[in-house]
Amino acid sequence: MELDVSTKRPVMLGVVGDSATGKTTLTQGIEQLLGPERVTVICVDDYHKYNRQQRKVVDLTPLHPDCNYMDIMEQHLKLLKEGKPILKPVYNHSRGDFDPPVYIQPAEYVIIDGLLAYYTKEMRDVFDIRLFLDPSEDLRRRWKITRDTTKRGYTEEAVLADLDKREPDSQEFIRPQRAFADTIVRFYPDPNNEGGSDSFLNVKLTMTGNLQHPDFSKVVTRPDGSGGVRLSMGRESGKVAEFVDIFGFITEEKALKLERYIIDELHLTGHNLEEELGQYTAGLVTRRSHPLALTQLFLVYHLLRARNPGAKPGSGPLPVGGFAR
Amino acid sequence: MELDVSTKRPVMLGVVGDSATGKTTLTQGIEQLLGPERVTVICVDDYHKYNRQQRKVVDLTPLHPDCNYMDIMEQHLKLLKEGKPILKPVYNHSRGDFDPPVYIQPAEYVIIDGLLAYYTKEMRDVFDIRLFLDPSEDLRRRWKITRDTTKRGYTEEAVLADLDKREPDSQEFIRPQRAFADTIVRFYPDPNNEGGSDSFLNVKLTMTGNLQHPDFSKVVTRPDGSGGVRLSMGRESGKVAEFVDIFGFITEEKALKLERYIIDELHLTGHNLEEELGQYTAGLVTRRSHPLALTQLFLVYHLLRARNPGAKPGSGPLPVGGFAR
Repeated sequence: MELDVSTKRPVMLGVVGDSATGKTTLTQGIEQLLGPERVTVICVDDYHKYNRQQRKVVDLTPLHPDCNYMDIMEQHLKLLKEGKPILKPVYNHSRGDFDPPVYIQPAEYVIIDGLLAYYTKEMRDVFDIRLFLDPSEDLRRRWKITRDTTKRGYTEEAVLADLDKREPDSQEFIRPQRAFADTIVRFYPDPNNEGGSDSFLNVKLTMTGNLQHPDFSKVVTRPDGSGGVRLSMGRESGKVAEFVDIFGFITEEKALKLERYIIDELHLTGHNLEEELGQYTAGLVTRRSHPLALTQLFLVYHLLRARNPGAKPGSGPLPVGGFAR
Repeated sequence: MELDVSTKRPVMLGVVGDSATGKTTLTQGIEQLLGPERVTVICVDDYHKYNRQQRKVVDLTPLHPDCNYMDIMEQHLKLLKEGKPILKPVYNHSRGDFDPPVYIQPAEYVIIDGLLAYYTKEMRDVFDIRLFLDPSEDLRRRWKITRDTTKRGYTEEAVLADLDKREPDSQEFIRPQRAFADTIVRFYPDPNNEGGSDSFLNVKLTMTGNLQHPDFSKVVTRPDGSGGVRLSMGRESGKVAEFVDIFGFITEEKALKLERYIIDELHLTGHNLEEELGQYTAGLVTRRSHPLALTQLFLVYHLLRARNPGAKPGSGPLPVGGFAR
């Protein structure tokens, strides 16, 4: 569905984080929830200056801004924000080289995922919602090894060497972007459940800035975390912040209650909604995670709110047609 | 040389015309004269939607606007006019498919050549100088056969069939753009010298609009054409127009006098200037044509004037550093 530019501009969601922080999993989940025809997903890691061979010569990692056409990335983000089409470059990660560009007309919601999407102020200003994915580093390394050995044909040694090579650039260019996010999502293993399935990961949502959030204090009876959810407030990057910790041990019943709360707040309806929420792939298997489901719902909440910024949380139905599927 | 955007925006020259009308020959000549580092040449025939295979399925010629991303073409023209970089698609005419896009930062002068660059008003408004190439149709067919059989590997039968197939789109989309040009260049064979070398082609320059032109009446002693140049005025597409006909039989001495006149008007200096002027390739041979040389000088005159619109013709040196080579 093309955006009707005569009425509204697209809502822009940024999903930024280092390599293998779960950008694709989260993005695909949101795309499914909103309905793929209402969502345009764009990976800005395709704005490379060099192909794999050339990168070896210039000796830069793809994480370095000098390795990317940052000016074109910024230009394209602005055009999308204005509801205008772009001809997006395509980097083929399997071949390590460029494919022909693709024409993209932004839909109602535009999700931009990538390593460097918050690098300049002009790029940051494009977004309605700025998410940063910040899983614990041991978890990220495990995810990267799993993905790159199963899906991209690398050996574990090669992945580990690559992680080491990229570390200085991760530190200098990727992680500092965390400070510009208004929602930080941190998955981390439960210390009491090391080595368990990713379904039992904990997640910490950190929210700063001007976004209005679902108020879990209305439905969480024990906000100290003993019931599976901890609500607290504090500081993050010098700003006041709200924290929601969702623990992997949360019971099915309590998780569904929270999910239902957000769904009702948004007056959302849809087939199989609860089945689709929180899905992720572990190797070849599709599994579900309640912390992931709740993270997705938080983001969908913000996306739908951004389309109707005047509405007060809980004050009535949002003007959405419900989930498309 | 990158443009210093803090001072000036690039001067934009359009070179539009049907296939095989001499766009590349003219463009390359101007690029050489001004110095390649001061000129960015962009062919907007690369904004195809479909590759050769796909075009057969949709049954559209490359001349049809629906076969091209006209919105992206317009967007990129505007960006270049603002001195901003673009990531330009690249269509590989040999393979009939797309190559990776290329990053282009506009230089001082931007030459846009292509089939459809004046198609929308917003595109036309981008140009400082709008040239249209309109050789006589028999000459164009001859040029197209020569080029496509020697450089693109087609048979003469295939080229002729292609010309027939494209004719309706030429008529509907390409030729009407002539009315938007402020300079029309028409090469045509001398009726008394049919089958002669292209060096002896005649050229008619038609100038309308607000551009200031070199005043040949100061140096042409017999403006009725008997000396090789005819100067006249009339109407073109409903507008008042000035016509300069340069005949292939013009003597070397007279042609050089006219070339020298424009060169002096512009206070141009440069090595081998007169040798480089008017060059074109005939098969594998490089030849020279005085009508082509004078056409190139007219355009260079307009380009340099556009950089300094306040200067009156003949009123003093233009602020140019001379030719770069």
